[in-house]
Amino acid sequence: MVPHLVPRWPAWLFRWRTACTPPCTPGASMQQRTWAGASRTPGLGSPRGAVGTSPLDCRGSSSTSSRAPEVMLTQERYPVQRLPFSTVAEEDLAAFERIIPGRVITDPEELEASNVDWLRTVRGCSKVLLRPRTTEEVSHILRYCHERNLAVNPQGGNTGMVGGSVPVFDEIILSTALMNQVISFHSVSGILVCQAGCILEELSQYVEERDFIMPLDLGAKGSCHIGGNVATNAGGLRFLRYGSLRGTVLGLEVVLADGSVLNCLTSLRKDNTGYDLKQLFIGSEGTLGVITAVSIFCPPKPRAVNVAFLGCPGFAEVLQTFSTCKGMLGEILSAFEFMDAECMQLVGHHLGLASPVQESPFYVLIETSGSRAGHDAEKLTSFLEQVLGSGLVTDGTLATDQRRIKMLWALRERITEALSRDGCVYKYDVSLPVERIYDLVSDLRARLGPQAKHVVGYGHLGDGNLHLNVTAEAFSASLLGALEPYVYEWTAGQRGSVSAEHGLGFKKRDVLGYSKPPAALQLMQQLKALLDPKGILNPYKTLPARA
Amino acid sequence: MVPHLVPRWPAWLFRWRTACTPPCTPGASMQQRTWAGASRTPGLGSPRGAVGTSPLDCRGSSSTSSRAPEVMLTQERYPVQRLPFSTVAEEDLAAFERIIPGRVITDPEELEASNVDWLRTVRGCSKVLLRPRTTEEVSHILRYCHERNLAVNPQGGNTGMVGGSVPVFDEIILSTALMNQVISFHSVSGILVCQAGCILEELSQYVEERDFIMPLDLGAKGSCHIGGNVATNAGGLRFLRYGSLRGTVLGLEVVLADGSVLNCLTSLRKDNTGYDLKQLFIGSEGTLGVITAVSIFCPPKPRAVNVAFLGCPGFAEVLQTFSTCKGMLGEILSAFEFMDAECMQLVGHHLGLASPVQESPFYVLIETSGSRAGHDAEKLTSFLEQVLGSGLVTDGTLATDQRRIKMLWALRERITEALSRDGCVYKYDVSLPVERIYDLVSDLRARLGPQAKHVVGYGHLGDGNLHLNVTAEAFSASLLGALEPYVYEWTAGQRGSVSAEHGLGFKKRDVLGYSKPPAALQLMQQLKALLDPKGILNPYKTLPARA
Repeated sequence: MVPHLVPRWPAWLFRWRTACTPPCTPGASMQQRTWAGASRTPGLGSPRGAVGTSPLDCRGSSSTSSRAPEVMLTQERYPVQRLPFSTVAEEDLAAFERIIPGRVITDPEELEASNVDWLRTVRGCSKVLLRPRTTEEVSHILRYCHERNLAVNPQGGNTGMVGGSVPVFDEIILSTALMNQVISFHSVSGILVCQAGCILEELSQYVEERDFIMPLDLGAKGSCHIGGNVATNAGGLRFLRYGSLRGTVLGLEVVLADGSVLNCLTSLRKDNTGYDLKQLFIGSEGTLGVITAVSIFCPPKPRAVNVAFLGCPGFAEVLQTFSTCKGMLGEILSAFEFMDAECMQLVGHHLGLASPVQESPFYVLIETSGSRAGHDAEKLTSFLEQVLGSGLVTDGTLATDQRRIKMLWALRERITEALSRDGCVYKYDVSLPVERIYDLVSDLRARLGPQAKHVVGYGHLGDGNLHLNVTAEAFSASLLGALEPYVYEWTAGQRGSVSAEHGLGFKKRDVLGYSKPPAALQLMQQLKALLDPKGILNPYKTLPARA
Repeated sequence: MVPHLVPRWPAWLFRWRTACTPPCTPGASMQQRTWAGASRTPGLGSPRGAVGTSPLDCRGSSSTSSRAPEVMLTQERYPVQRLPFSTVAEEDLAAFERIIPGRVITDPEELEASNVDWLRTVRGCSKVLLRPRTTEEVSHILRYCHERNLAVNPQGGNTGMVGGSVPVFDEIILSTALMNQVISFHSVSGILVCQAGCILEELSQYVEERDFIMPLDLGAKGSCHIGGNVATNAGGLRFLRYGSLRGTVLGLEVVLADGSVLNCLTSLRKDNTGYDLKQLFIGSEGTLGVITAVSIFCPPKPRAVNVAFLGCPGFAEVLQTFSTCKGMLGEILSAFEFMDAECMQLVGHHLGLASPVQESPFYVLIETSGSRAGHDAEKLTSFLEQVLGSGLVTDGTLATDQRRIKMLWALRERITEALSRDGCVYKYDVSLPVERIYDLVSDLRARLGPQAKHVVGYGHLGDGNLHLNVTAEAFSASLLGALEPYVYEWTAGQRGSVSAEHGLGFKKRDVLGYSKPPAALQLMQQLKALLDPKGILNPYKTLPARA
């Protein structure tokens, strides 16, 4: 892609680099950046076996069973009481059929994929799935449900990590799958307006053909919906460069609990007319309204992308590499990810991916995105000379072409998949002061000892976001007891966040108090009561159950 | 500053550049980037004369009067009714004195600067100004005022454009001026936590000494408070590069109307635990709570800054220059500002600043900020070759040293000041689709004819943000009638925003409906009622008066 770059590398660096000219991941086929390898309906028919037996991501290591065994019903596994909503009756189905003819799904086989989350940890028993195509249809449906006191579970691509996207009991599933139209794209400003059900990867392709990129990218891109991304305030891989959706989402159209439509779908970079209502819905996980359309600012497509994959001798060196990198790569730095040695062992063992660099205690993936390939290469060269020369990095490889870039990214992005094949997984997603981020992993490893099979840490170091995962052969109450509330208390002790980017959904709603004070919880409850007085929107999610 | 750059410029460009080696602004002294030249209390003792006679920014061209004449009381000029709040009594003053001994100001002379906005267009008649130092003191004050039903006007640097920062009647002025302490700064992450009354310029200096910059910069930096910046969701000059405060503000501490403290002062890049309450207060102009502390993400200080000042033959060429610029300067572009020929005439006539380039219908100021001076210079050279060669730009000059950069910026930043010396100013701040942005200026010029002295357009083109200003010798109801609601209707017709960055405050609250639908207004009113049921916080601001 940028062949003229090669001669610019200093000779020693070129040797270092060419040491990895053969494919870095022998035995691994090209992988799309999607959960579980590009399945559009993750969790559905995925080749992972074993029954989940805990509130966690638990499965065996088999990858050959043709059909995953049933997941235990959420209402049986968790101490949760159904709230006094109405139950869907024949007359309700008839009413829905009048609003969206032919798009009222009641077939249990079809419903299964929408009742179970992709991690196969929670399972609702909804009897009906609705597939509106327009905002007006969503409005009619919600107005009807509001009048009838029927609970509703809005659902996008169902790729969430915290059980927020599936029903807990028999909530009506309101899917955005057919709301997948681009409404407009402005070729000068890069502002995209689209329906909420557009799949992130398809939007990426759409804007990339027009020389822009989406401001967010995440492993689930092949399945997740932009509406779901916004509803969960997704972070992901481009956060370091393009920031939060709170800055890049310019407008939203939302249907409120009573069916009224709130049209704040502006396409303006700046608008200070009154309170910014769209912010209420970003990250509220479908509990305050149903997002039906999104206006989002897309940055110009970078002309040059490079990925360096480096081995570091310790976490202190990872941190110093990060500081050096910020200073020397500056505005072209677009990702700084890290993973520990156990992560690399897992992707090697379960997915057959080999490390492209010599075995190291830590690995770092650095991505640059810039407008001039030659300049970016020079900056990277200087940086690599510096970190290699000073011993911060002991080995590394660099990719400038699309195929090898994807291969290097796969090492980082497929950790989730490798973990899921390792047994029962206890997942945590925390924000911490960057200098303390790995202490939690080390502490836990010492605390758990042989109780855990693996204790691994990886994540978006540039954002202070650690993905901490613990695996075991099977669910163990004593292991869970050793993990919780320890992890949450440890995080709260550092004034960290117990959910950096995954949200709270159903599974984490009760830990909100570790990161927010009582006054904040009270105001959140008041906002919920204001916007959804009957509580029909995604009940049992985000906010703790009231005492 | 970057002397090694010069030889890299092609010979013809070097000539072009050196044509402006003498100071670009003969006769102009160095100006700080502050309103009216670095006054800490703009509007107070500023050298602008003449009585304001309209709801606008009206004054004569005299710059010699030692004391500005009185501004008409807002309650006399506007059709506004005092709401039934209590009136401050002696016992209240005694109570305040117990909370903040020695910091209860009742001297009319001292109060004057806080009762009148810096544009000298609105004037309250508050009898008391309170200067708390701590959040606890603010909490005690608000709890007291809430119980006593006393209205409160939170005030930062009083640099707002829409009359949001001064009382309308006799509201108690709650100043953040003494809440000016930095609480913490993290030298790796660049996260600054400080009290709300810190002056933006002082924070800039503080973080620049530590190799970071504030993510926002604006003309009023010498006076404005960070709390006020956040409360008004200030945009400014770095928006193009670092985005909205909604993305860069990481946490807030806010005192609610009843005196309770909402501590969401986290210092984390990512935190998805529940609803993001701080967003409610960003841009709500002190009507929902009083911001007492701010946590904000500061980007690394760029190692090289360049400013190019260019002349364009028409607005179509300005737009094409912008597109070319985005493509060729990419990630180093940090500002793209434009001004028309009449703006240049005004800064020349009133401030003695001379154009550094030959007379042109339009001027563009482009700033780059990057991590490697040589690379930035090469990108700029390529870009300038392209726009000069293709005729998009007819003349230009470039500054790489701090002194000349400030001089070029002064041409753009001091337009506000030049306008204020031109007579009665009618000010509009709108967002529009970028390709239509100047049509509004041209339309108005034709519509107003000789009624107006000047109709000028300038602003942040990169953000689609036009500052449209009309001047006349004196206030004229017929001119106002020709402007309004025409400007608002024109903007609404393009789905623009009638307040891009200035907010609504008191003067624009009634035009909110041009940019937001009735359902949004209703929800805003509900939020106000939820957070401030007695309506004591900054009454008569942001939201339209209820029918």
